[in-house]
Order: sequence, then C-alpha cells, then structure tokens
Amino acid sequence: MNFPDVLRDGRLNLRGSCSVCRVCDGTVCSGEVPGMGGKGTGSSFKANVLSLNKYKVNMRTIHDVKDPDTSIHLFGKTLDIPVFAAPVSGTTLNMGGKFTEEEYISWVIKGCLDGGIYPMVGDTAVDSFLIKNLEALKKFDGQGIAIIKPWENKNVIEKIRKAEKAGAFAVGMDIDACGLITLALHGKPVMPKTVEEIKEIVDSTNLPFILKGIMTVDEAKLAVETGADAIVVSNHGGRVLDHTPGVADVLPAIAKAVKGKITILADGGIRNGIDVIKMIALGADAVLIGRPFVMTSFGGQDEGVKIYLDRLKSDIKSAMVLTGCKSIEDIDDRVLYKG
Amino acid sequence: MNFPDVLRDGRLNLRGSCSVCRVCDGTVCSGEVPGMGGKGTGSSFKANVLSLNKYKVNMRTIHDVKDPDTSIHLFGKTLDIPVFAAPVSGTTLNMGGKFTEEEYISWVIKGCLDGGIYPMVGDTAVDSFLIKNLEALKKFDGQGIAIIKPWENKNVIEKIRKAEKAGAFAVGMDIDACGLITLALHGKPVMPKTVEEIKEIVDSTNLPFILKGIMTVDEAKLAVETGADAIVVSNHGGRVLDHTPGVADVLPAIAKAVKGKITILADGGIRNGIDVIKMIALGADAVLIGRPFVMTSFGGQDEGVKIYLDRLKSDIKSAMVLTGCKSIEDIDDRVLYKG
Amino acid sequence: MNFPDVLRDGRLNLRGSCSVCRVCDGTVCSGEVPGMGGKGTGSSFKANVLSLNKYKVNMRTIHDVKDPDTSIHLFGKTLDIPVFAAPVSGTTLNMGGKFTEEEYISWVIKGCLDGGIYPMVGDTAVDSFLIKNLEALKKFDGQGIAIIKPWENKNVIEKIRKAEKAGAFAVGMDIDACGLITLALHGKPVMPKTVEEIKEIVDSTNLPFILKGIMTVDEAKLAVETGADAIVVSNHGGRVLDHTPGVADVLPAIAKAVKGKITILADGGIRNGIDVIKMIALGADAVLIGRPFVMTSFGGQDEGVKIYLDRLKSDIKSAMVLTGCKSIEDIDDRVLYKG
Amino acid sequence: MNFPDVLRDGRLNLRGSCSVCRVCDGTVCSGEVPGMGGKGTGSSFKANVLSLNKYKVNMRTIHDVKDPDTSIHLFGKTLDIPVFAAPVSGTTLNMGGKFTEEEYISWVIKGCLDGGIYPMVGDTAVDSFLIKNLEALKKFDGQGIAIIKPWENKNVIEKIRKAEKAGAFAVGMDIDACGLITLALHGKPVMPKTVEEIKEIVDSTNLPFILKGIMTVDEAKLAVETGADAIVVSNHGGRVLDHTPGVADVLPAIAKAVKGKITILADGGIRNGIDVIKMIALGADAVLIGRPFVMTSFGGQDEGVKIYLDRLKSDIKSAMVLTGCKSIEDIDDRVLYKG
Repeated sequence: MNFPDVLRDGRLNLRGSCSVCRVCDGTVCSGEVPGMGGKGTGSSFKANVLSLNKYKVNMRTIHDVKDPDTSIHLFGKTLDIPVFAAPVSGTTLNMGGKFTEEEYISWVIKGCLDGGIYPMVGDTAVDSFLIKNLEALKKFDGQGIAIIKPWENKNVIEKIRKAEKAGAFAVGMDIDACGLITLALHGKPVMPKTVEEIKEIVDSTNLPFILKGIMTVDEAKLAVETGADAIVVSNHGGRVLDHTPGVADVLPAIAKAVKGKITILADGGIRNGIDVIKMIALGADAVLIGRPFVMTSFGGQDEGVKIYLDRLKSDIKSAMVLTGCKSIEDIDDRVLYKG
Repeated sequence: MNFPDVLRDGRLNLRGSCSVCRVCDGTVCSGEVPGMGGKGTGSSFKANVLSLNKYKVNMRTIHDVKDPDTSIHLFGKTLDIPVFAAPVSGTTLNMGGKFTEEEYISWVIKGCLDGGIYPMVGDTAVDSFLIKNLEALKKFDGQGIAIIKPWENKNVIEKIRKAEKAGAFAVGMDIDACGLITLALHGKPVMPKTVEEIKEIVDSTNLPFILKGIMTVDEAKLAVETGADAIVVSNHGGRVLDHTPGVADVLPAIAKAVKGKITILADGGIRNGIDVIKMIALGADAVLIGRPFVMTSFGGQDEGVKIYLDRLKSDIKSAMVLTGCKSIEDIDDRVLYKG
Repeated sequence: MNFPDVLRDGRLNLRGSCSVCRVCDGTVCSGEVPGMGGKGTGSSFKANVLSLNKYKVNMRTIHDVKDPDTSIHLFGKTLDIPVFAAPVSGTTLNMGGKFTEEEYISWVIKGCLDGGIYPMVGDTAVDSFLIKNLEALKKFDGQGIAIIKPWENKNVIEKIRKAEKAGAFAVGMDIDACGLITLALHGKPVMPKTVEEIKEIVDSTNLPFILKGIMTVDEAKLAVETGADAIVVSNHGGRVLDHTPGVADVLPAIAKAVKGKITILADGGIRNGIDVIKMIALGADAVLIGRPFVMTSFGGQDEGVKIYLDRLKSDIKSAMVLTGCKSIEDIDDRVLYKG
Repeated sequence: MNFPDVLRDGRLNLRGSCSVCRVCDGTVCSGEVPGMGGKGTGSSFKANVLSLNKYKVNMRTIHDVKDPDTSIHLFGKTLDIPVFAAPVSGTTLNMGGKFTEEEYISWVIKGCLDGGIYPMVGDTAVDSFLIKNLEALKKFDGQGIAIIKPWENKNVIEKIRKAEKAGAFAVGMDIDACGLITLALHGKPVMPKTVEEIKEIVDSTNLPFILKGIMTVDEAKLAVETGADAIVVSNHGGRVLDHTPGVADVLPAIAKAVKGKITILADGGIRNGIDVIKMIALGADAVLIGRPFVMTSFGGQDEGVKIYLDRLKSDIKSAMVLTGCKSIEDIDDRVLYKG
C-alpha cells in the first residue's frame, strides 16, 4: 500500500462526505456541516488554508543543516514531529458512516503511535462516544489526550475523571464548540465559560489542561489567567462560525502576547511539512492536524495513518534542510519571506 | 419540510430565473435583469457579498453570554431579529412566472409574521401591483411597510395614502430606482429628487418614512435634512447601476456621519447570522434581506419563509454566543477582526 | 431584431473567432492573435477591463439631474454620446471570414451614423484595405476618421492624402502597431517614430491629427510636442504587447500631465454606460469602443450596430442620472468612489 | 511544421505528463512530482509565473529603436538572445517515457545551437544520465554547460572532470536539489553546502562556475564569497519546496545586493519575450527557460526547439521595439510600470 492508494481508498470509503481533493482547502465541501466542510460559505475553513498560504518561505541552501532533528518534547512525552492528531469524531454524522467510531479511532490511535506522535480523541452529545474513545485509548495504554466539549462544569469534570482512568496523559476542552446551540435541544447545553468557570475545571485535575478554540489576543491572555497549560489557536476547522480569520492570521499576535507563559498549539489548514514549519515560525510550539487523519484512516486504517505520518516526517525534514533549520527550536521568523 | 427541501423546490419553481446557488453571490446570474441578477457584469450585486466577506470576525469563547437576546424595537414594533424582508416584486418578469404576485407576497408576509419579523412590500410601473400588495398586507392587519417608486411627487403621495389605508406601519421610497429610465417610455417616469421634493413627501404622512437607496456620506446627510426617519443603505441589489461599491464598503463612513440622527438600515448581500452581526457592527440598526425570501417562498410558501427565519434566528443566536454579544445593542466593532 | 438576437447571431457569424461572452474581458480568447483576443497570456486585454473594474462609482439619487445631456462636440462634429467606433479590421484574418471587409465596414459606418456617432476606419499591410475602407467612408460623405499604420513617413502621408480625398474629417496613426515586426517580412515595415518624424506627418495635413497608442506620461508630453490634436490612450486592445497596464490604470496620470493641451481619447475595455462615465471621470474627453462593433455588425449588420448604440445611449443616460451628472463636461472625479 | 503543430504533437508525445496548457503556469500539474509540476500545492511553480505577471511594462512608441540588438556575450560566448535552456532531465520519470534521455537531450542541444543559444544539461541519481548527457554534448563540440547535483564534494568534482573532458564551456551545481532527501535512501545523498565546501568545488576547475538555487539576499552574498562566477536565482521550478516566493519576487533585492559582483541568471516562469525583458529589467544578466524546451523537443525534436527559439527571438525583438530598448544592456527599470 502506498500513499496514492490510501487516498484513493479514502475517497471511496468516505462515500462522498469528503472528496479527498488534490489540495484540501475547503472549497468543494463548503457549507457541508454535518459533513467534513466548513460552516456556511466555508470561509473560515478556507481562511485557515489561505492564511497559511499567504506566508512564503525563504529557501536556503548554503549552510550545514544536513540532518535536522524534527522531534519535540511536550506534556512529558517525546514526539517524532511537532504534530498531534486533532480530535475529530462522528463517523456516521460526518464521514459517510462506512466504519464505526471504534474502528476509526483505533486506527487513528495506532497509526499515530506507530508514527511517533500522539492522538487527541473527541467528545459529542452522545456520552457513549467519549467512553468508546477512551476505551480505545486505554487499549493503547492511554497514550493520548481527551478533549471534552464545554458542557456544564460538573459534566466536564466527570468526563475528565473518565479520561484520567483511561490513562490519558493530558486533557482539554474545545470551548469553540460553545456555539452549537442545537445541542441544547437535546438537553445537553454547551456554553462559553468565564475565567472562573474554566479555573474550576483546570483545578479539578492534575493532568496538563489544554484550552482549544482561542482566536484573539485578549482571550489568549484570559487563558493564561485560567491556569491552563496550553491553548489551541483554532476556529474549530471553520465548522462553528463563518467568516473568522484563519489561524495563521491571528497566531503571530497571540504568540507575541503569551509565548512562554502558556504552550501554544496551532490547528487549521496544516497539510504538509512546510505548513508545520510556518506555524512554528509564527509562534506555535506544535500543531494539530485534523482532516488528513480521517482521509488516511478511512483509506488505509492504521497503516494509512502511518504512511501519511512517514511522508509528513520526511517532508518536514526536507523542508528543514531547504530552510536551514537544525531543530524545531531553531525555527524562527528568519524562515519567513518578508517581501 | 426541511430547509434543503425548501431550497430544492425553490430551484424548481423559479424555473431557471434563479439557480438557488450554494452561496448566493451574484456570479451565476450576472447581468440577468430582468431576472434575479445584478445589472451588466453583476459587479454591484457581487460587491455586496464581497464587501461583507472582506470583514472577518473575532471568535470569542471566554465570557458569560450563554443566552443572547436577538430582538430589537423599531418603528414602534418588536422584531425577533433585526431583519426586514426587502421589497422585491415581479414574479412574471423576474421570477419565472410560476406563481402570481398575490400568492408570492402573501407567503412572504405570513412567513415573516410567523417568524417574528415584518415584510416590506414593493411597487412597480403597473399600478395594480402595489394595490394587490397592499390588499395582501391588509389581510394581515397591515403588519408591514410599503416602499413606493420615485414617481412624480403627487403620484408618490397618492400611493402613500393607499398604504396608510391598508394599515402599513411605515412607508418609504426606493429612490435608487430613479435610473430605470425605460419606465418613462410607459408614461411613468421615475426620477431623482431634491431635498425639497423629498421633504414634501415626508411631510405628507404621519407614518415613519424610509428613504431607500443611499450610498454616499453626502447623501446620507441630505437624507437627514429631509426629515426622513430612516435610510436604507442600498444599491438596489446591484440591479440599477453596475460597478458601485458594496453596501458594507460604504456603511461605516455613512454610520459615522449620521448614526443617531436617523435610523440606518443596511441592504445587500446578507445571507446568514454572522452577516447580520457584521452589518450591525458596521453601524446598521437593522438589515433588509431580499433574494432569500424569493427562494424560500417559491420553495415552501409561507412555511418555507418561516423555516428560513427559524434557521436565521438560531444562526444569529449562535453567532452572538461565539462573538460574545449579549444583545443587538451590545454589538460593536469589537466584533470585527482588525487584522 | 433585439439585442439578444444580435449577440446570438454575432456568435454564429463570427464562427468561433469570438465567443461573444456574457462579459467580454479577454479570458476566453487569451492569446488569439490572429483572432479577436489579446497577445500571449491576454493580460493586456484583461488589464483594460480589470483596470476599469477597479474603479467603483458613487451612486447618487438626491439631486435634480432628471434629463442629462449625453452629447459632446469634437473635431467640429456633434456626437450623441462621447464614443467613437475604434478602427478594427481583418474580417478574414481575425473575424472568421464570413463577411467581406466592405460589408463589415459599411455596416459599422452606417450603424454609427444612424446611432449619432462616428466611426474610425483602419489600415493593414494590404493597401487595398484602407482604400476600400475609404471608399466605404466616401459613400457616407466621409463622415469618419481614417487611422493609418506607422509605415515609412512618405507612405503614411500618401495615405493621408487618400483619406482627405475620401472626405474624412480627421486622420490619425496607430503608432502602437510598430511592434508588428513580421510586417517587415512582407516589405512593409512599421516602426516607432521620433517627435520630428511625427511632426512631419502632422504638418502634412490640415485635418485634425490623432496619435493612437500612448501609454505613458512621458510620451503623452512628447505627443503634445508633435502638434497632434489628440492622443488615444491605448494598448492596441492588448494585441501587440503582453503585460502592459490597463488603459484606466495609466489614464489619470496622463490626464493630469496633458489635459487641456491635447484632446484625450481612451480606448480599452469599455463595454457599457458606466465604463464611459468612468473614463471621462478619469480624464478622457471621449472614448473608443472596439470589439462590440465587430460583434454587433456581424450579428445584425448596420441595424445591429444601431441597436447596440441605442442601448448604450440609454445606459449612459441612466448612469448619468444615478451618478448625478448633468452633462459630459459635468463628469468629474466626484463620480469615483474613493474607498 | 509550425508552432501550433509542435505544441499539439508535444501534448501527445508527453502522454499526459504535461498538458502543454495555453498558459504554462503550474495550475493543471500542481503536485505532480514526479511529473512536470510543482511540489505539493504547486504554489512555488505558480509563484514564479505570478511574480512575473505582477510586473507590468511601459509600452512606448515615440522613439528611434527601429532595429534593436537582442544578443549578449557571456562565459566567452555570444548568444542571439539572453536565454539558456535550463537543465531538465528524466524522460521516463517525469515526461511520460516515450523518448529516451539521449533522444531528448540531443534535440535540445541541437535545437539550441541552431537557434543561437546554448543548453545546460543535467544530472541525476543514476550516474549514466550525466554521462550520456555529456556524450551528447561532446557530439556538438561541448557547446553547453553541465549542471551537477550537490553530492558529496569528491563526487561533484569527479563529475566536473567528466564535463571538462566533454568540452563544456562552463559547469555548475543545482544546490537547490539538496532537499531531495529520498536520494539518500539510494546511497546517493545530496546536501546543502557551506561556503568552504562550495569554494573547494569552485577552485577545482578553471571553467566558469554557476551556483543554481539562490533565493535570498544573504545567500547571494555568500555565493559571491565562494568565488562562483554566476548564480541562478531559482526555486528549482517549484519542485523541491512548496510556498517559496517567485523568482521575480526575490530578484530585485538580490540584484541590488550583488549586481556586478557576480553574473545573475534568473530561472522561473519565463515564457515569452516580455518576460525575458522583465527579468533583465529586474536585474538579471540572462535567463534560463525550462519546461518549454521539454514541450517543443517532444513535439518537434530539434526542429521544434528551433521553431520555438525563432518565435522567441522575434517576440523579444518586438517587445524591445515596443518598450524602446536598443540593446539588452539598455534594458533598465524604466521599462517597468510603477503604478
């Protein structure tokens, strides 16, 4: 099995819910929520890709970076490359329904671990989803992170307990899901939260806590106040609010404000090695990648995920050679073309 | 009946006069006047959508806006959301002719009232149009606004009399129709008007008077001089003059000049909740939406209009949560991403 | 016969040499020289349209311009609208060959005169072309202008003599044809010319002399030195050099430098009424329109041209109402939206 | 055989590996590496074309440049036009495999020499490629340049020896190939190099030495330090790193820094005469053209290449007339439109 095979089979197995486009940029699937697209015009999904594309990089070839180190250390773990699989769920609702949630998440978890990185697993209105995700995680010694929706605090804290028992090495909350007001109709309201409410959640666990869904400097500063260990700069893949800027648009100002005070993860539109390097150069400590894990797990199970990660690792390495970066820490804004 | 059904049937029933595109942005129908498109290259229609799209919004999730209030009070009425149905007419000329003017306008009126907002009804060269529109309005206790074309003053005033009798709670004139010089060939000239001429019209009625078709700061100031209660910043849906800027392009300067001195309505390219919020943030007190009422009434009669409005209300609410706005009055330019 | 008929038949009769696109902007025909397109990537043709489109206009409705005057006086003539038909030739080479040069040019001449404006007729490597064009012009009392290619001076002057005899009321030279170096292979070299060489030509006739093909401020000033009566700001429809700016890009600086010292005509991408008004607002005294005369003469002979001009006249008038311009002289940069 | 025939046959003979698009801009083939496209999204290939297109040129017609001189002198040779054929190889891997490497490169070499310019020939992981290329070159008295990949120094120097024996009049290294880390898997590592390492290579030969793959000002200065005779500003046709700027984006700053200290060649997106002139105006001494030699040799063997070069020569001459440039040295930034 090679990468083109994985993509071809992914396209088939996703049954039209995702076209596995040559360039995954939110155009074809615009408005497909449920589905794999961005909300409304799809502009927030597209902005993630476009905002990254706006940055051009300096190609450099006269230097001695012949074998760069792509690894990082975070949350007490070593990652071969500075990448997490983002929490994406809903095989029936969003991915065409050919595979079960358990099949899908097991492939992502195993593929990530085989590929030298760690997965984040997600949560939905149906309680059993998170539980199954945690069961799958437990089979792999809990080598992953659980991301919980912004329910009422006591429910969030209850679910964190379950993640701890499954052995997750970090937990988080995708607070950017707070606009899914239709969940309230099912008696499961999600909601934005004040600093105090988030503090209560952070204080409820000894695990590193990740707050996902920060898109402004003011809220990045509030996130620091909550005591969270990390933020994810994310617009939820463009799936909750149309017409936000792209993650790479807002990342530099956020990094300028809070870099060093809190770990910064970036999530949005990252597809290949140079995208990872750009996000690091713009201020991220590591990145999340979402949709490609759906495509590759649907196309090649855990092997598909592993093949994708091997390619990505090689691509990151090549890009580091061509930009003259010895290590991830060595990546700075010298990489970015200033025009 | 659900929303995709409404759109599918709308597409069928509009018989090619409108393609009910995934994103309604004036591309497919460019030049289709008569029809549902923008004049010439369609650039003024497209500019309405593009000018709104240029503004990006700040997604915020750390706050206590858990249940925002979407309602406003205007012209002595309460609206569930800050939206009016714009005056659009001509089922035969512009909409494929499957339904009569009476059917269409009745559905729009009933759907709006059921959905918690109010309709504006329009006027054309054929006198019977306005009369039928007013008859339809009367059946619903006149719960709407009549917008009259800029005929010679005595004819305008005569028509205002009819609107008053039908019980309309406000009247207006779409002065941006003054470029339809072919109407003069039918002995029904429309024309631009001086401040004095408009004053005469405003003074002829006790109802709130709305001047529709303002696109510059200088004319917004002149509108204040006329004594009108409200302006509609509008390029007539891009249907009278090619190559104007978009409404969202000109709105901020107009709002800066006359906000508080006159009610500001914005009309152009508004499709979903975040578009409404953008227009308010840019200075509008409320907005007009046009083409979607044609699509949804043709697709699902009054029920189609109601389904659209319920979705829109939910979407506005979700967008207010995700931008941290407690109420419509609370929406200001903090919502807008400054880059 | 109505305008859609003219366009439909034009498309058929042009036999694929021109697609008579909904918006004529140089995209479909890019590179088609010979043919009706722009040279190479077609960027210079497209730039003409795009540069005009970049300018947006202020729609105004509160004023007393109820019946604007669209006429101008130039070269001792009165034109109903400030428009000339540009010199375009080559029915066999460029237009699919269905009609003869004589048929085509006669229709353009008659249609223009019937429509209240005047045609320019062109010249090619084959001497008989200009001669036939002049014969056609003579049949209509020479009510037009002859534009001659930049041959060696004695040949240019010889052809001016012929134009005088045909009764043309002005003559000119499209010096922008000087890059057609393949003509030299046929023993008919065209060439750029110095100020002195142009002076000799200007001095050889008592008719008003028009220099067509000025795209820079420095050469506009040189044109004034030559004693010519008018320049045409033109990139030859994008047909001689790829990647020039658009005419509307360079017009304002040229007008600033030489307005009042020489008559300024603008030629490039003008399609409808508001385009004419934009060019005047940017500094032109009148404009040339090219390709639409090919489409409409091929589609409806002289009647097609007349139908087009009637529409254009009505469109100019409507646009003057909607921008508040009493007369062509009254058009200034208040019309242009400043952003 | 005429040029359209060459292109038509090229399209057929390239068997889908290249579509020979109307405008060759990297869109259709994006991601096709192997193949003829740019890496990943193809953005670096596209940036080459787009960066050139951003520059517009001043068309000038009032001057005495009636017969411009298109030739230059470089590396002891006279070139009819300031153009080299870029080193492109891999008929099986990249070009559909219909012709052998020997056939292809012989056609390019002969076509170039017949057309008054010189070819560069390339190198790959398979040693026999360069050897065959050099054999082909030898048949034509070594009238060309050999460009070697950045292997370990001793291997590079060994290959330079072979090029000298074949009679090449200059040699070079495409150091931008250093990111092809998969070559290491075949026991043939390529690598970036320090100034000292490059110096060793430069000092190993008496031939002029060309360093290909410079995209930043800092590395252009380092290139001067190495003692190389020339740099090629190049992103390797966009085939090694996604999201670099275009060559025409970075060329002006590089020229400002090192012009006169080292010969500057530019390679990226050049298709026609005005593109050549733009690159010269931006600071290049001469240019490399790549893909068109593949298309035209596959479409018409050496005759196809010659036909292309004749057209290009004529196009450069016409463009020099229309921009008023007497000679290549005479081309400066007066040619560029400043907006």
